[in-house]
Amino acid sequence: MIDKLHIDALAGILGDKGVVTRPEDLEAYETGARYDRGRTSLVLRPATTEEVSAVVAYCVTSGIALIPQSGNTGLVSGSTPDPSGDEAVLSLDRLAKRFELDLDNRSVRLDAGFRLSDLNRKLEEHGLFFPIDLGADPRIGGMIATNTGGSRFLKYGDVRRNTLGLKVVLADADGTVLDLQCDLRKNNTGVDWKQIFVGTSGAFGIVTECVLNLERLPQQTATALLVPASGAHVLPLLRAMEERLGAYLSAFEGMSKNAVTAAFAHVPSLKNPFQAGQVPDYVILAEISRTWAPREGEQSLDAVLESALAEIWEMEEAPLADAFVGPPHEIWALRHALSEGVKHLGKLIAFDVSFRRGDIMAFCDHMKAEMPSKFPDVTVCDFGHIGDGGVHFNLVVPKDSDLLKDETFEPRLREWVFAVAVEEYHGSFSAEHAIGRRNQAYYDLYTPDKLKDMAAGLKTLTSPAKLGSVRFG
Amino acid sequence: MIDKLHIDALAGILGDKGVVTRPEDLEAYETGARYDRGRTSLVLRPATTEEVSAVVAYCVTSGIALIPQSGNTGLVSGSTPDPSGDEAVLSLDRLAKRFELDLDNRSVRLDAGFRLSDLNRKLEEHGLFFPIDLGADPRIGGMIATNTGGSRFLKYGDVRRNTLGLKVVLADADGTVLDLQCDLRKNNTGVDWKQIFVGTSGAFGIVTECVLNLERLPQQTATALLVPASGAHVLPLLRAMEERLGAYLSAFEGMSKNAVTAAFAHVPSLKNPFQAGQVPDYVILAEISRTWAPREGEQSLDAVLESALAEIWEMEEAPLADAFVGPPHEIWALRHALSEGVKHLGKLIAFDVSFRRGDIMAFCDHMKAEMPSKFPDVTVCDFGHIGDGGVHFNLVVPKDSDLLKDETFEPRLREWVFAVAVEEYHGSFSAEHAIGRRNQAYYDLYTPDKLKDMAAGLKTLTSPAKLGSVRFG
Repeated sequence: MIDKLHIDALAGILGDKGVVTRPEDLEAYETGARYDRGRTSLVLRPATTEEVSAVVAYCVTSGIALIPQSGNTGLVSGSTPDPSGDEAVLSLDRLAKRFELDLDNRSVRLDAGFRLSDLNRKLEEHGLFFPIDLGADPRIGGMIATNTGGSRFLKYGDVRRNTLGLKVVLADADGTVLDLQCDLRKNNTGVDWKQIFVGTSGAFGIVTECVLNLERLPQQTATALLVPASGAHVLPLLRAMEERLGAYLSAFEGMSKNAVTAAFAHVPSLKNPFQAGQVPDYVILAEISRTWAPREGEQSLDAVLESALAEIWEMEEAPLADAFVGPPHEIWALRHALSEGVKHLGKLIAFDVSFRRGDIMAFCDHMKAEMPSKFPDVTVCDFGHIGDGGVHFNLVVPKDSDLLKDETFEPRLREWVFAVAVEEYHGSFSAEHAIGRRNQAYYDLYTPDKLKDMAAGLKTLTSPAKLGSVRFG
Repeated sequence: MIDKLHIDALAGILGDKGVVTRPEDLEAYETGARYDRGRTSLVLRPATTEEVSAVVAYCVTSGIALIPQSGNTGLVSGSTPDPSGDEAVLSLDRLAKRFELDLDNRSVRLDAGFRLSDLNRKLEEHGLFFPIDLGADPRIGGMIATNTGGSRFLKYGDVRRNTLGLKVVLADADGTVLDLQCDLRKNNTGVDWKQIFVGTSGAFGIVTECVLNLERLPQQTATALLVPASGAHVLPLLRAMEERLGAYLSAFEGMSKNAVTAAFAHVPSLKNPFQAGQVPDYVILAEISRTWAPREGEQSLDAVLESALAEIWEMEEAPLADAFVGPPHEIWALRHALSEGVKHLGKLIAFDVSFRRGDIMAFCDHMKAEMPSKFPDVTVCDFGHIGDGGVHFNLVVPKDSDLLKDETFEPRLREWVFAVAVEEYHGSFSAEHAIGRRNQAYYDLYTPDKLKDMAAGLKTLTSPAKLGSVRFG
């Protein structure tokens, strides 16, 4: 519990709107998007960088541990308080005023508490967007702290690539404000300090403002569902598409038969282009897009996609067995229904792993082959971003399985999946969700001692006080 | 001078090929590409990461200062020894064996001593390239240490964006090898340590191997010289081009009248599309490209460019006054002749600065207006990368000017240009050349104390011994 005297002092800094203490109001801040329920007796809601600095200075001096919380949509328990009730949540939800669009520079300077959807709504009239495409609707500060990627990484990259500058408050006795808020694209004048605050779960500082690169909104999009000739043809198919469509290619998503079948079975609104009962072993969603309106004399984007597919069809050892070009909303509806469909099969245990692109299918095949002997009731329903190497390696256990009565089951399962992913396939145990409390043990396990020591040193250099959910020190 | 005993010990580690001591052989390593002549009595040429580690450990333990040197093509005195003769050069020129191409992952793992041209020659048969386009032919390790950008930044980004992983040797008593050689595109499992070695002139460690992202080679290119309606129309023209050509746009280079006139006057092979004596105040080189071969039914790329320009031509307040679509080699010949042309005018004093894109023209106009009263003999011959905000702000002084007899002239000029660029226009004093000895004073001047302290702390954490030309500690 946090002492009443401290709460009063913090209310003095932030005003009544800036401090939440009523249990019914605290609940939303205690509860993660999908997992997790922690406890807190105090949520701080500063509305400016200066207020963040003042409350951080107060809390550091008074020994109150802080959990920065942005949209709270993360999946690794990075933004919820622990169960002790001793941590105060520092929410960014009122830090959403500053919005300075620079059309010439194709960038925006804004407070870190903006939601992605609000940002993109404001940008739409200018034909621009922040090109990170996600299922959730996070706030920007949290997107920076987790370095989210999403489904269009192949074309636009991740948050790191699209962040030009940051303003950060450090967890020291002064609540030091670091102004790294450069809006330049080319600048090599020393250490690029913003990089250490991207993807590190808020442990090194609280992002309060940022300058983001923006991209032109696509005005034409063409999509297809592709059936590779076999699992071994998925990468040749990707390479053939990259060769023929280059910078047009904006998504190349893979979906396993199990995931697709579950979606068709449980989301009746979906159009099924395949013969009933004939869902292929693997399906690719390919999207191409361009940023200008259709122009006279120019081939339509559907025709561009069709002629590229026709060329691929005629290759020797063609990697393509079948293809369905269709309207983007119908094609993406299947991709977006996968999570929903899979959840109907039982308890979902999700892994966000990544590999060299050529190893994705091999990893999934390996796991499918081993699973029956290791964990007989578990079904693999993988899907993911083949174009960038990320896999949502989703496992499902029937709700009545005995495995779920065994407390050691989930830890054993996680340990095995990560061991194969990291040790055998040189993959990552967290592709785009960062660390959080949920992955702390794997950070501890898989990070070389020298890098752990350096991270601890960096923590001392920047934010010596405890900050956030991850222990780097 | 370096003691003979040490030289013998190092020859014992590296073999005879790995140690250079003959004055006539040392000269190339003592001399920078454009500026600078230092002195050394010893060049070390390790051929593997293990040899780098062994010689670094020896030199750190023995107190021998090391200057890592890659292609030695940099422009900020970053890779040449100082005049004392006490520094040993550690050259990467024999570290060029490992070359592991991963076509599925569109990446290559290679030793850092490869030259850019050699890398791209090996990639060409696969239709791939490392998409950093430069006038010089550096080695890859140096490109990482300076985070080069170049003329196609607008489309492909800088070296940072295209570096997936690194192997680095730290300047400590063990010559610790840090393996950050990840070949994943999505990976968020802690501090992304590779970022601190990019663009920091080798002060935090010596890059010995890397994994690079590769892109598809363009198969079609269309180019034009564009005349903006006025200086104020340069940015509206860029925005109109981005709106209509999106991911096709691969260069948008600006060239001032002074630079273009000098090129036409002194490089007779150039084709001049303008009326004689009618060089416009400002000229844009625009390039669009795509990565596939011409396809039946598809508009030619020249036609795409022409129809976009026709649309821009018909805009209200059209930003375009004239346009010449022509073959890429002719159009680029002008851009590549600018440096040569400008050098004929007198002594060249070059600045590599950058701005928000919307501030480039304002800065150049400001300087052109002020120059006659500040430094009457100096002519501004600017050109640069409008698409990414970088400007080669080149100043020329006639060889017979009295200014060149005044020792205080060049320091006063530099001080003034950087003060206006950084303090008034919030620009960068080094867009894509990094720091080196040449920009050390400006790093010291313009870096906030807190960031200097953090950099000193980071130096202690990584490479506590002196390394390279820049003092971060």
